[in-house]
Amino acid sequence: MDEDRLAHLTSLRRELHRYPEPAWREFYTTSRIVDELERIGVDQLHLGRDALDADARMAVPDEDELTPWHERARDAGAREDVLDATEGGFTGALAALERGEGPTVALRVDIDALPITESGSPAHVPADEGFRSNNEGFMHACGHDAHATIGLGVLEAVAESEFRGTFKLVIQPAEEVIGGGKAIAESGHLDDVDHLLAIHIGLDHPTGEVVAGVGGFLAVRQFEATFTGESAHAGGHPAQGRDAVQALATAVQNLHAIRRHGDGATRVNAGVVRGGTATNIVPERATMEGEVRGETTELKEYMSERADTVVESAAAMHDCDATVETTAEAPSAESDASLADTVYDAAGTVSGVTSRLRSADLGGSEDATYLMDRVQKHGGRATFVGIGTDHPGGHHTPTFDVDERSLAVGVDVVSEAVKRLGR
Amino acid sequence: MDEDRLAHLTSLRRELHRYPEPAWREFYTTSRIVDELERIGVDQLHLGRDALDADARMAVPDEDELTPWHERARDAGAREDVLDATEGGFTGALAALERGEGPTVALRVDIDALPITESGSPAHVPADEGFRSNNEGFMHACGHDAHATIGLGVLEAVAESEFRGTFKLVIQPAEEVIGGGKAIAESGHLDDVDHLLAIHIGLDHPTGEVVAGVGGFLAVRQFEATFTGESAHAGGHPAQGRDAVQALATAVQNLHAIRRHGDGATRVNAGVVRGGTATNIVPERATMEGEVRGETTELKEYMSERADTVVESAAAMHDCDATVETTAEAPSAESDASLADTVYDAAGTVSGVTSRLRSADLGGSEDATYLMDRVQKHGGRATFVGIGTDHPGGHHTPTFDVDERSLAVGVDVVSEAVKRLGR
Amino acid sequence: MDEDRLAHLTSLRRELHRYPEPAWREFYTTSRIVDELERIGVDQLHLGRDALDADARMAVPDEDELTPWHERARDAGAREDVLDATEGGFTGALAALERGEGPTVALRVDIDALPITESGSPAHVPADEGFRSNNEGFMHACGHDAHATIGLGVLEAVAESEFRGTFKLVIQPAEEVIGGGKAIAESGHLDDVDHLLAIHIGLDHPTGEVVAGVGGFLAVRQFEATFTGESAHAGGHPAQGRDAVQALATAVQNLHAIRRHGDGATRVNAGVVRGGTATNIVPERATMEGEVRGETTELKEYMSERADTVVESAAAMHDCDATVETTAEAPSAESDASLADTVYDAAGTVSGVTSRLRSADLGGSEDATYLMDRVQKHGGRATFVGIGTDHPGGHHTPTFDVDERSLAVGVDVVSEAVKRLGR
Amino acid sequence: MDEDRLAHLTSLRRELHRYPEPAWREFYTTSRIVDELERIGVDQLHLGRDALDADARMAVPDEDELTPWHERARDAGAREDVLDATEGGFTGALAALERGEGPTVALRVDIDALPITESGSPAHVPADEGFRSNNEGFMHACGHDAHATIGLGVLEAVAESEFRGTFKLVIQPAEEVIGGGKAIAESGHLDDVDHLLAIHIGLDHPTGEVVAGVGGFLAVRQFEATFTGESAHAGGHPAQGRDAVQALATAVQNLHAIRRHGDGATRVNAGVVRGGTATNIVPERATMEGEVRGETTELKEYMSERADTVVESAAAMHDCDATVETTAEAPSAESDASLADTVYDAAGTVSGVTSRLRSADLGGSEDATYLMDRVQKHGGRATFVGIGTDHPGGHHTPTFDVDERSLAVGVDVVSEAVKRLGR
Repeated sequence: MDEDRLAHLTSLRRELHRYPEPAWREFYTTSRIVDELERIGVDQLHLGRDALDADARMAVPDEDELTPWHERARDAGAREDVLDATEGGFTGALAALERGEGPTVALRVDIDALPITESGSPAHVPADEGFRSNNEGFMHACGHDAHATIGLGVLEAVAESEFRGTFKLVIQPAEEVIGGGKAIAESGHLDDVDHLLAIHIGLDHPTGEVVAGVGGFLAVRQFEATFTGESAHAGGHPAQGRDAVQALATAVQNLHAIRRHGDGATRVNAGVVRGGTATNIVPERATMEGEVRGETTELKEYMSERADTVVESAAAMHDCDATVETTAEAPSAESDASLADTVYDAAGTVSGVTSRLRSADLGGSEDATYLMDRVQKHGGRATFVGIGTDHPGGHHTPTFDVDERSLAVGVDVVSEAVKRLGR
Repeated sequence: MDEDRLAHLTSLRRELHRYPEPAWREFYTTSRIVDELERIGVDQLHLGRDALDADARMAVPDEDELTPWHERARDAGAREDVLDATEGGFTGALAALERGEGPTVALRVDIDALPITESGSPAHVPADEGFRSNNEGFMHACGHDAHATIGLGVLEAVAESEFRGTFKLVIQPAEEVIGGGKAIAESGHLDDVDHLLAIHIGLDHPTGEVVAGVGGFLAVRQFEATFTGESAHAGGHPAQGRDAVQALATAVQNLHAIRRHGDGATRVNAGVVRGGTATNIVPERATMEGEVRGETTELKEYMSERADTVVESAAAMHDCDATVETTAEAPSAESDASLADTVYDAAGTVSGVTSRLRSADLGGSEDATYLMDRVQKHGGRATFVGIGTDHPGGHHTPTFDVDERSLAVGVDVVSEAVKRLGR
Repeated sequence: MDEDRLAHLTSLRRELHRYPEPAWREFYTTSRIVDELERIGVDQLHLGRDALDADARMAVPDEDELTPWHERARDAGAREDVLDATEGGFTGALAALERGEGPTVALRVDIDALPITESGSPAHVPADEGFRSNNEGFMHACGHDAHATIGLGVLEAVAESEFRGTFKLVIQPAEEVIGGGKAIAESGHLDDVDHLLAIHIGLDHPTGEVVAGVGGFLAVRQFEATFTGESAHAGGHPAQGRDAVQALATAVQNLHAIRRHGDGATRVNAGVVRGGTATNIVPERATMEGEVRGETTELKEYMSERADTVVESAAAMHDCDATVETTAEAPSAESDASLADTVYDAAGTVSGVTSRLRSADLGGSEDATYLMDRVQKHGGRATFVGIGTDHPGGHHTPTFDVDERSLAVGVDVVSEAVKRLGR
Repeated sequence: MDEDRLAHLTSLRRELHRYPEPAWREFYTTSRIVDELERIGVDQLHLGRDALDADARMAVPDEDELTPWHERARDAGAREDVLDATEGGFTGALAALERGEGPTVALRVDIDALPITESGSPAHVPADEGFRSNNEGFMHACGHDAHATIGLGVLEAVAESEFRGTFKLVIQPAEEVIGGGKAIAESGHLDDVDHLLAIHIGLDHPTGEVVAGVGGFLAVRQFEATFTGESAHAGGHPAQGRDAVQALATAVQNLHAIRRHGDGATRVNAGVVRGGTATNIVPERATMEGEVRGETTELKEYMSERADTVVESAAAMHDCDATVETTAEAPSAESDASLADTVYDAAGTVSGVTSRLRSADLGGSEDATYLMDRVQKHGGRATFVGIGTDHPGGHHTPTFDVDERSLAVGVDVVSEAVKRLGR
């Protein structure tokens, strides 16, 4: 990649980094990406309701959480056409290059940020070099700023190449809440795809290392549990209350204590809890946003059933009622080895690649599995490609950052693979 | 009491009911009370910093919680002079009638509301008759609207009477958070008081019943515990996180499990909990607003020490740090039997009083104990008077309400007692 | 009391102290008491099945727990006639003096010891002076050795007096497990009693202090909870197990966390737990012997219902089954003030009495309440008398001991009261 | 294998099955094995202290748990010479055939049973065919009866063969408590071994399937935690007690709640708990026998450190003291692929073998890892061989049983491999 191109991509990544937006609220980010798509020139551009299946969206926040971000995006200079198309949580986009006869190749990148306050330490490059998050309390702590950047870089490289066939760039919203993958999968846009690539940066692989076929996706279910008891004066009539926070605490303790499983890895987290209204009132209501995962769908189901039982029993224990609502879910998936081989071979030709792995385990969840599953069920192949990057802090921590040299590696490896597939 | 007076008091109580304001934010309420004080005519009027010891205030919310209520009070028509005097959480007032030689008699009433959403059921009189809370999410669920009304009624009755001496009406803010009593006590305004009466409506006593000397106050400590761990991706690196919500849950469970004490009643409540930022992130931070109480100060201390140990051990258990900060505290206190006798005798002359008790237990906490303690230490006497009222829902519940006939009982009993003391 | 009599009683008390026997296994103790009854001479003597209602016994241990104690008593020299009469857990006795026309007065004492290992410290008088428990692991840690001794002393004093009427000495077994009181009450022996006295030594009152009418008995329910899950290899198939020890642990935590009650004192204890068979096997079975108490029968019921819910929910939480069986229960009761007055007056004439209280709270449970309730329901009066004694360690601890001077106080106060009642 | 040989082995296995003995108490079992060794004829025979390193034994029970089993073995007809040599928990044996020049090949089998009550259901073959456990409460629920039988069968087959070199049969005690492996390893008997085979039956592989090199051993640490508080009367002075059972319950809950690890499988079990002395006494003492495991030694260490923290924090939470003592430990290990290949090839020649796997994961722990590690560190090779068997119930459950056809498979596969190594 030439210097100018790299400088452009680096600048774009920093701009996106400075403007992190959480799931379904990527209004400014989508707008900025559309600018780039228009600059590059594409043959199809689907926005908002046209890019996804509206009813299949999961974990969409309420109107009053969406609106301030929509307004903030306008204040930041987002385009009115994009703001109109995405209003109500219809972020993301799908662009296509039509280059005659040939296979349909798709690349999926995601664009949302996390509710994490970014480090302000001088040791943290974005803070030191002036592109730390402008949206205090939110942060690109998982590299989706880099994903979007690489996606656009690949699009431009493919556009300039001899590629024959159709190339689709999927700009997926709401990956962090496992909310967008299903909506993209069910849009139909992927049903004619022969080869699907999805990418992720980092994952504890160093700059220069490429994983051609990531596996070991954990199936996941996210849920919201609500406990309802009865309030009472905590000093005068403590036993007239039915304490939703006691029920919540019992549930949290016992969720983590769900027995490990002999068949493989499982996970559980009680990520957000809230309950009660005043120090001296027996809490009437408490909620938990939690998740369970499993190395296989069966293991996820095991955790899921146990979690339901824990929540119900904890409520019964403290004479409360409980409801559990699934807010998001994703299956497991496997990368196709033959498609991974193509990526592996392509990576062998890219300068900057110092290490290649045919496969490695993710050990987390990704709703790219919905897209992979969709393509595979329609007869296509899919692989999830890892682009290593030296990251000082772990994913989802305040000091996460990417080594920007990996932007070039990502663009070069993926565009080379796409070009080989399109020959 | 004549019909007109009762109609006026009923109307005033409903007006206050319709405008509930939480602790240290009683801007409109104070303003409305000052209107009444001016109408009645008083010899002294102390507002804001003049009515209390600013440094002794406890549980004062942050500026950004105070300001919206201040603005809202202005919008509702509060007086600019009162808004100026009370800005920054200096609510409440102290008025005095000077009627020549004679003892100093004081009456303390409180004025704050609770963060409870008021019932909208047609069976709930305020909803049915149109004076349900205008401040959604907040409610006079403990009768402080009636307390303020009775206090003003007594002041007017005393003003019109032959009472000789000085009568002070103490309008205390922030009782519900145990935040205002100490500040009033340390203002010095009570140091010359010979006889202090404090009143409370309801307390499970029916309309027509009067308790001349309530006892059994529980000493109380309210605190905020903060747990700090470390965030991590809950799917990929669950063990790299240190989970503040697990620590919180362990603490809640074990706070309630503090052993009961053979020496008397104890209480514990984890009233408000919050923790975590996202479903898939190991929670880095969690907080709890809790309280402990004891029948004696020693029992409160027992609970308090055990609670500190529980919080620290729960944090250590999950490799987190914890801090515990006391936000409010109140001692125990006893009513003087001889002063209660005066109230008992006075009640015997009031029509509407159908039952008199010399004493009864509160079984809760009240920061009137700070005032009682102050007066008793300066050689005066104090009693806490219960004015029964039929209340459909319990104190601190969404269906609490008062039987407005008890407004007349309260005014008549207390003003009769004050007049007897002033003879 | 003369020196010889006191020396005899002291020696007897030490002999009983040296031979502590737990509930329903007081074979040697009963035998030794029968020796004394015969020495004194009584008009009626009921043993074993004749002294109680066999079917109303509660908490009787299994044959294989009874037999070794029966054999041990024989080895220690117990009388064959008593061993025959008491075999199978029919310990205790009832003796009567018939002294012509007059009221029927009864005195109840209890005789069982506790499963506590007695202190061997030289600071512990029984260890230092050579009458520490011979039955390692068991101990008279609640003064029942003194109760039996005082009962016999009173019997002898009454026998030598001018008392007119009938005097019954009730030697009750199995008080510590709340197992014997009901069986004595339902024997019918108390149905003609006009005045019932029951005594207890210590209770945190010093030597020389007498409480004429103890009140504040806690109603109690003891129960055994059994959790049944399914075993599995803890390494290979942890999730195939259903863990009874996890269920037990969740239950213990939440039993202690049952909310305190505004109406009065409650108690809860998980006194004995057992579960599992091997370190590497998921535990299939676990049991808990627990208890709940309440200041009133209603409060005991509140705790009891909550406890059942906790056990069932804890089992459901971990996919186990649970059963809860009540092993013992006792109601609350009140001493009659008029009968207590007689004791109070009698105590005024006894040298060695330095302080008299008309009433005081026990703050614990006692199945003497079954006897008191029975007598009161048949038209008689009852009082529970506290005989103070300086005790270095608390009741039910390894260093509990009595000040033997209180033996004389107990005998003199109670016999004087009995004589007054028999005049 | 001919019919007679199989009939003999089947009969021997049933005899051992009928007489299960737990770890370090395999007195009768060792005696019966020595009978067979003498019948076959061996060149070396080491018993008791000669077969192992006495000081390296772990988890040896107390004398009073050893003695009854020693006496019971004598009653069952065990040989006096073996009883003498094994007294005090020195069970097991080591026999060798010396067949001239050639490599040293060793086979390790284990012999102890589990504290599980065997099923009496007619569907359970041992119950139906009359060889159910005679030692009620104990059971060969992991197939060590079959292991010993196969070991002897292999020895006899090798003795009758052309094998050149030295063949050692290691009869290891106390595998179930992870107590014997280290003692065998440190005896020095294995230091000259070139090829070590260890076998296990079942492991969810069906009859006819052979795994040539089992891997995936979980490193393990077993420990005993003791909680010490202070007893008190649970009714009268509940807060004077410091409750060891509350500490235990908090520990159990939080042990299971130790966060799962992203690097691989972990395990935790609280296998045996005990605490308290009486229903109405605050428990002074409680103990737990627990274990943690990890896919690697590092993961075991992670769990181990967290477990220590949990125990200490749970004790601190309830004002108790705690100690944690490691009772047994075993590292992880890997089978040598080249040695596994020999077994794989040998299995290909055995009738009855219907399926061969080069490797499979155990998913549990085994102290054979101590022996494997010792041999590998001295330059030899080791493999752990799985002999499939249809087992109706899982390992460590009351309905576990083996398909006796697998005895022949085991003997034939292993003896063929030994003979190939000895050529």
